[in-house]
Amino acid sequence: MKIGIIGLGLIGGSLGLDLSEQGFQVVGVSRRQTTCDIAVSIKAVSAASLDFEILAGVELLFIATPIGAISATIKAVIPYLSPDTIITDVASVKQPIVEEITPLYPNFVGGHPMAGTADQGIESALRHLFHHAPYVLTPTESTPLEAIEKVKQIVNILGSKLYFATPEQHDQAVALISHAPVMISAALIETCCGNSELLELAQNLASSGFRDTSRVGGGNPELGAMMAKYNRNAVLFALKQYQQNLAQVISYIEQENWPSLTQFLEDSQLHRPSFLS
Amino acid sequence: MKIGIIGLGLIGGSLGLDLSEQGFQVVGVSRRQTTCDIAVSIKAVSAASLDFEILAGVELLFIATPIGAISATIKAVIPYLSPDTIITDVASVKQPIVEEITPLYPNFVGGHPMAGTADQGIESALRHLFHHAPYVLTPTESTPLEAIEKVKQIVNILGSKLYFATPEQHDQAVALISHAPVMISAALIETCCGNSELLELAQNLASSGFRDTSRVGGGNPELGAMMAKYNRNAVLFALKQYQQNLAQVISYIEQENWPSLTQFLEDSQLHRPSFLS
Repeated sequence: MKIGIIGLGLIGGSLGLDLSEQGFQVVGVSRRQTTCDIAVSIKAVSAASLDFEILAGVELLFIATPIGAISATIKAVIPYLSPDTIITDVASVKQPIVEEITPLYPNFVGGHPMAGTADQGIESALRHLFHHAPYVLTPTESTPLEAIEKVKQIVNILGSKLYFATPEQHDQAVALISHAPVMISAALIETCCGNSELLELAQNLASSGFRDTSRVGGGNPELGAMMAKYNRNAVLFALKQYQQNLAQVISYIEQENWPSLTQFLEDSQLHRPSFLS
Repeated sequence: MKIGIIGLGLIGGSLGLDLSEQGFQVVGVSRRQTTCDIAVSIKAVSAASLDFEILAGVELLFIATPIGAISATIKAVIPYLSPDTIITDVASVKQPIVEEITPLYPNFVGGHPMAGTADQGIESALRHLFHHAPYVLTPTESTPLEAIEKVKQIVNILGSKLYFATPEQHDQAVALISHAPVMISAALIETCCGNSELLELAQNLASSGFRDTSRVGGGNPELGAMMAKYNRNAVLFALKQYQQNLAQVISYIEQENWPSLTQFLEDSQLHRPSFLS
């Protein structure tokens, strides 16, 4: 099977590495020649081009561009594809993508491989990045079963944990466990920078607890802003729920209600492992 | 030099392992005989007892009990010590401890070795836990220089990064980078549990970002509540600053002010590394 990937960054490049290793003929498209050259040299793709013509004959096409470019990319690439070609994307928000693409191109399956690192670009591509990671597919009632089957088969080959969800459910769940944490974590970093007299001491004393809690808040700013933009309602809903929970904790501390604070922390200790299996 | 440790948990046990390895004669006191037996068997101490009499002749005594027991422990142990014995503690809050202990026992140096794991108890004691970790000493104007020198020497032997601060500065800095993050992180866990329809999907999709952001909120609840209790003012101050920063982020998202949100996330990305050196 010939597979195409448009967008050869961390995600597109890593997909290419594993799919090439599995024996598929993988071809890539990037906006930059340097990226194409690197992608070929690390064997993420067997050939890469600035031009969509290289995609002739692909059975499955991954759109791995930044989320803001997905729709325009699909519109532009359709004339180069056979109508049998299945398109899937890798964006971390699904509802607006699925709503926009499905009427344009029925043979589309929304997807979200949930893996990444703090790095970006083809230089950061990693083998087995998606191994054991969740990979969500968000077909709709109109998605052809054959298209779902083919993408499912690829997800299994990548060794990912496959889940199905509606685009709406996906976006709400991801707002909770991924998008809102970026904002929660970034706000912590800025709070720790807010007191210039304490800054140096706080910097010296920050240890593994701060490192972990602040990690996602120190990630790619454009990606964080895109998550908020494309998943705005769900992110706002999650952050407002979060504000209520935090206000509850603060109120326990203000009232010196240590039994209730302890109970809250016991609940969070108890509940966390169910998210880590 | 003979060194005593009262409280043979994760911190006391780990101190014992390294100090014994360095050739000091280390003796321990615990409230439970089982703990004493384990501490001797893993060579955290050469001898351990339920009784303070074992501390006769120690030059330096670590109080590594839970924070709520420090003051009562010091009052009870003083009759067993020579007035030359230097006492230091390991509590993560310093101002209330230093204020209470200094009038009782002048030869006291407040200390805070900033290392730990999610585990607790002597079974979790680790060699080199404090190596490269910050270790803060909070002497006051009345602290004898000789006492400061001796504790400083031990901190250097542990391979920790030594910092000096006033008890107040320490507590404010630690509220920002350690205590407030526990509450911020716990509130995230409880938010993700708040929607029963999405719970299973959220649990399945939670990945490394959630794992890191939630880690300290899933830790020891009693310890978290003690931090809030003993460092109440500084923790409340930090959390209220945090609420303002989070409200700012939410307002950018509500107003669809993507340039300002991106700028906020660029700032947090830029500032984070200065806390991780």
